[in-house]
Amino acid sequence: MRIAIDAMGGDHAPKEIVLGALKAVNQFDNLNITLVGNEEQIKKYTKDHASISIIHTEEKITSDDEPVKAVRRKKKASLVLMANEVKSHQADACISAGNTGALMSAGLFIVGRIKGIDRPALSPTLPTVDGRGFLLLDVGANVDAKPQHLQQYGLMGSIYMENVRKIENPRVGLLNVGTENGKGNELTKKAFELLEELPINFVGNVEARDLLNGVADVVVTDGFSGNIALKTVEGTALTLFSMLKEKFMVNTKTKIAAVLAKSELKGLKDQLDYSEYGGAALFGLSAPVVKAHGSSNAQAIFSAIKQTMEIVEKNVIETIESEVKHLQVSTEEE
Amino acid sequence: MRIAIDAMGGDHAPKEIVLGALKAVNQFDNLNITLVGNEEQIKKYTKDHASISIIHTEEKITSDDEPVKAVRRKKKASLVLMANEVKSHQADACISAGNTGALMSAGLFIVGRIKGIDRPALSPTLPTVDGRGFLLLDVGANVDAKPQHLQQYGLMGSIYMENVRKIENPRVGLLNVGTENGKGNELTKKAFELLEELPINFVGNVEARDLLNGVADVVVTDGFSGNIALKTVEGTALTLFSMLKEKFMVNTKTKIAAVLAKSELKGLKDQLDYSEYGGAALFGLSAPVVKAHGSSNAQAIFSAIKQTMEIVEKNVIETIESEVKHLQVSTEEE
Repeated sequence: MRIAIDAMGGDHAPKEIVLGALKAVNQFDNLNITLVGNEEQIKKYTKDHASISIIHTEEKITSDDEPVKAVRRKKKASLVLMANEVKSHQADACISAGNTGALMSAGLFIVGRIKGIDRPALSPTLPTVDGRGFLLLDVGANVDAKPQHLQQYGLMGSIYMENVRKIENPRVGLLNVGTENGKGNELTKKAFELLEELPINFVGNVEARDLLNGVADVVVTDGFSGNIALKTVEGTALTLFSMLKEKFMVNTKTKIAAVLAKSELKGLKDQLDYSEYGGAALFGLSAPVVKAHGSSNAQAIFSAIKQTMEIVEKNVIETIESEVKHLQVSTEEE
Repeated sequence: MRIAIDAMGGDHAPKEIVLGALKAVNQFDNLNITLVGNEEQIKKYTKDHASISIIHTEEKITSDDEPVKAVRRKKKASLVLMANEVKSHQADACISAGNTGALMSAGLFIVGRIKGIDRPALSPTLPTVDGRGFLLLDVGANVDAKPQHLQQYGLMGSIYMENVRKIENPRVGLLNVGTENGKGNELTKKAFELLEELPINFVGNVEARDLLNGVADVVVTDGFSGNIALKTVEGTALTLFSMLKEKFMVNTKTKIAAVLAKSELKGLKDQLDYSEYGGAALFGLSAPVVKAHGSSNAQAIFSAIKQTMEIVEKNVIETIESEVKHLQVSTEEE
């Protein structure tokens, strides 16, 4: 298997990207990696390695670039050349820790959609109290979603959690303003009906309040609301941690308390660090395209590579393709 | 001034409702309260008081009742009779800690809208790190919002924060998936333009990640996304506190740490307790209608009464009415 990686994307590129890639090829015999980026900079962190090849380019897309324009105009950017590797079947999958919007555009315009999937969904795994985590999709690939998009998300999320995360009969919930049937806006009311038609374990509406308690294994929502939910979790957790830190600095007593509880508090932070759960796949594209967290270190890149390998090995894309066909047949039959 | 209060709504009704009302009339000379509910039960907690009158009824709306139906069918429910007091101008404002949906329906169908406001907005104040708090509207009164609704929310929120919370030139932000102009879905893109036209301090798009840091004094969003944001803040905070509690129970060292930091950790929890910021007003109705938190104790009811009095005293409704007229004139002129 060959995975193309954007060596220039992310806060700690290329160093941590290269080190993560090295760790992966040293661990997995069946893995080849193509690093795309500035060869001179990449070679600072790796000698010649039989399983790593480099595609040199000096152009890159930054976090300030306007995504669609950047992908169209910067034709030699590392992220674009990476996507080209997948399009031309030189690589089976690709990973970038760079500009999320640009990766979504490259996925859509270069890699292309699965036939029958209208819109890809950006799908991170968020932490839960029990450590299993849940897949939230979409968190912003498609901010004007229609009911059938949400139905497709439910199907794709269920296939991923079952095959890659090995969760039997994963519980798929619809993010909504109440748990009762019939709740919600026009979008969720219609999506609810469509999700009920699928051959998945649809558990109905779930509320944002219960997400981190693991109320479902897959939570389906439109890209706008999903983005709000994701960033509210992040923001609330960060705010609480910084307030907690302040509280522990108040006086001698609290400072002693901080020392005594240090390792447990560190554990709490790790438990909620969702970069531990790998990257966010863009489901609905004709090959695995994975967004690693912008602040990824070598370990996070390694996790994203491992996750991407599993998506390839477990034939997630092929399964989505075949299930979507059934879906269309059954819709047409009605 | 007279405020009608649903004595039977909320987890601790009627006891805490009555005690909160008593505290308020004992503190404010210019206040009269009408308690609506079971007279016998109410009288357990209050003797005859010159500033309190009771409207007896045995019917009430529970949290399980379907809101719209309940308001239409239970014509003698305490919440419905309370709203009637406002409609008939017997009371200047009303408060309930009961079924939120039923209160919204009673507000809409009985109290009625301000002319020129299409949809009322449920508007709680959420905590921020600096303790100022911010107004989030709407959090679920209207889950299928249109751009002009969001424009009206911006206007109403700004008037409230300026007059009642005494924040000069309050910063009004639009909740969105990115901070750059032009970001968002169809709804927020159009709402952005409409908010720019208002004579308020519109600061542009704000992200969910920055809400608790006090990025704006008023945050405007549709009822669906607002509900997701509100409940995600609640859920994340509750989850973190329960995980934190567990961490402090791990061993002797952490248990000592918990004792040492106890009062500071309690302070942290209080800082994030948004019932401290009063109730959630339903702005856009022709009189103040305030939703107190379902778990309100006497102190929270007292806070909600004080807040409601200020909305009346500062002529928030009248100001909204007159500003909305200007808004329509300026829209028509274009």
